[in-house]
Amino acid sequence: MLSSGEIKLIRSLKEKKFRDAEGLFVVEGEKMVAEAGKSGFKIEKIFFRDGEDGIGEAAMAKISMLSSPSPALAVVRKPEGLISDKPAELLSDKGLYLALDSIRDPGNLGTIIRICDWFGIEGIIASQDTVDVFNPKVVQSTMGAVFRVPFHYASVPELCMEAVKAGGKVYGTFLDGEDIYGKELSAGTSAPDVVIIGNESDGISQQTAAFVTERLFIPPYPSDRKGSESLNAAVASAVTLAEFRRRGRRR
Amino acid sequence: MLSSGEIKLIRSLKEKKFRDAEGLFVVEGEKMVAEAGKSGFKIEKIFFRDGEDGIGEAAMAKISMLSSPSPALAVVRKPEGLISDKPAELLSDKGLYLALDSIRDPGNLGTIIRICDWFGIEGIIASQDTVDVFNPKVVQSTMGAVFRVPFHYASVPELCMEAVKAGGKVYGTFLDGEDIYGKELSAGTSAPDVVIIGNESDGISQQTAAFVTERLFIPPYPSDRKGSESLNAAVASAVTLAEFRRRGRRR
Repeated sequence: MLSSGEIKLIRSLKEKKFRDAEGLFVVEGEKMVAEAGKSGFKIEKIFFRDGEDGIGEAAMAKISMLSSPSPALAVVRKPEGLISDKPAELLSDKGLYLALDSIRDPGNLGTIIRICDWFGIEGIIASQDTVDVFNPKVVQSTMGAVFRVPFHYASVPELCMEAVKAGGKVYGTFLDGEDIYGKELSAGTSAPDVVIIGNESDGISQQTAAFVTERLFIPPYPSDRKGSESLNAAVASAVTLAEFRRRGRRR
Repeated sequence: MLSSGEIKLIRSLKEKKFRDAEGLFVVEGEKMVAEAGKSGFKIEKIFFRDGEDGIGEAAMAKISMLSSPSPALAVVRKPEGLISDKPAELLSDKGLYLALDSIRDPGNLGTIIRICDWFGIEGIIASQDTVDVFNPKVVQSTMGAVFRVPFHYASVPELCMEAVKAGGKVYGTFLDGEDIYGKELSAGTSAPDVVIIGNESDGISQQTAAFVTERLFIPPYPSDRKGSESLNAAVASAVTLAEFRRRGRRR
């Protein structure tokens, strides 16, 4: 039911070079496997632990990447066109997009994708040095959102340039930015608008920052509070996107 | 410079039972060690990798819990009164508090403490089945906020009861709660108000939910959006507290 070749293949998919070579990634858990099935992604194979066609607990433990193996695991084909060299094609004429400038932590990326799903973000565009979206830790922490939010790798500076050319704005959070609650926010209602989230330690890179048209800041409380230096990248994404969407619902 | 007894002690502090027995925990990184030094916490010992009194790279690797050992490590004494059986004593007559109902993931807890630091939360009260705040993963992911935000373990239902007795409100987020953007929010300006964050999978427990006076919901966008089921516990904390503080700055 589970050949040694399959075991070897599935285990190899922990590493990016094998995911790239095979064009495959792994999804675990009954809910996640069901989400994969409902999505447009192509499922290559599904393994169940229990039932008539089940492979059993020992076999599941061999292929699982989780500390407690789940009852279901699917091998899924990566979508075509994941990496784009034409960022303009990733933008519609309207919509709110998130751009990631070098997010390195898999848990952060997964959480950000889940946030974008919740707040109905049109698509995520990540710089090529952002962690692989099909890393098992990323996939699992999206709780299925990886199957719902369009995700591409492309040049973030080029993307910003294209958004501006199309009449959109480019938002970024900076420690010396302007209070988000005092700024007008356009959330893609008349052009493609982009919110950039920077790297966990270094924030938005200088190269990308040059394309930001609106510099934002999430104020601490009280506003002159000293001590804490920043919010985590996923948390900054959540607070920023929640505020864009709060404004949207008032209109 | 670093005895085998010290190595054994420090390595043992990865485990809660030894942290409890010794009353100690470990902090790593120059910035974190400096934060510990500035705080009211008692530093038992500091080890530096480099310099005249440095212990060297090999010795640091032996005691470090990080995959790439940092240049500084401190052994810090846990504060007194971490566990309280009198939750009333944890509340001032005014202030906004966060209560954690069984948060299990160390990264989530660390991120939540960092969020509370940013938004000037008066104190955090966690149920006793919440992960240990001095777990090294929690400590490191707070980025120093663990030294700034008052943190206690106590009964969350009792705490809620005490807040209500003192004239405060108890807020909780639920999938069937009311749109947070349409609700009046009191942020501890006239009494101790409490925001409860529930467990990662199960949300707020039934026992605790009975004490919630205001049921909130962070709406997705668009508001009838289907698919995503919930936000991560730390993300829900961030969006909720940001909204409480946004209202506060308008007054």
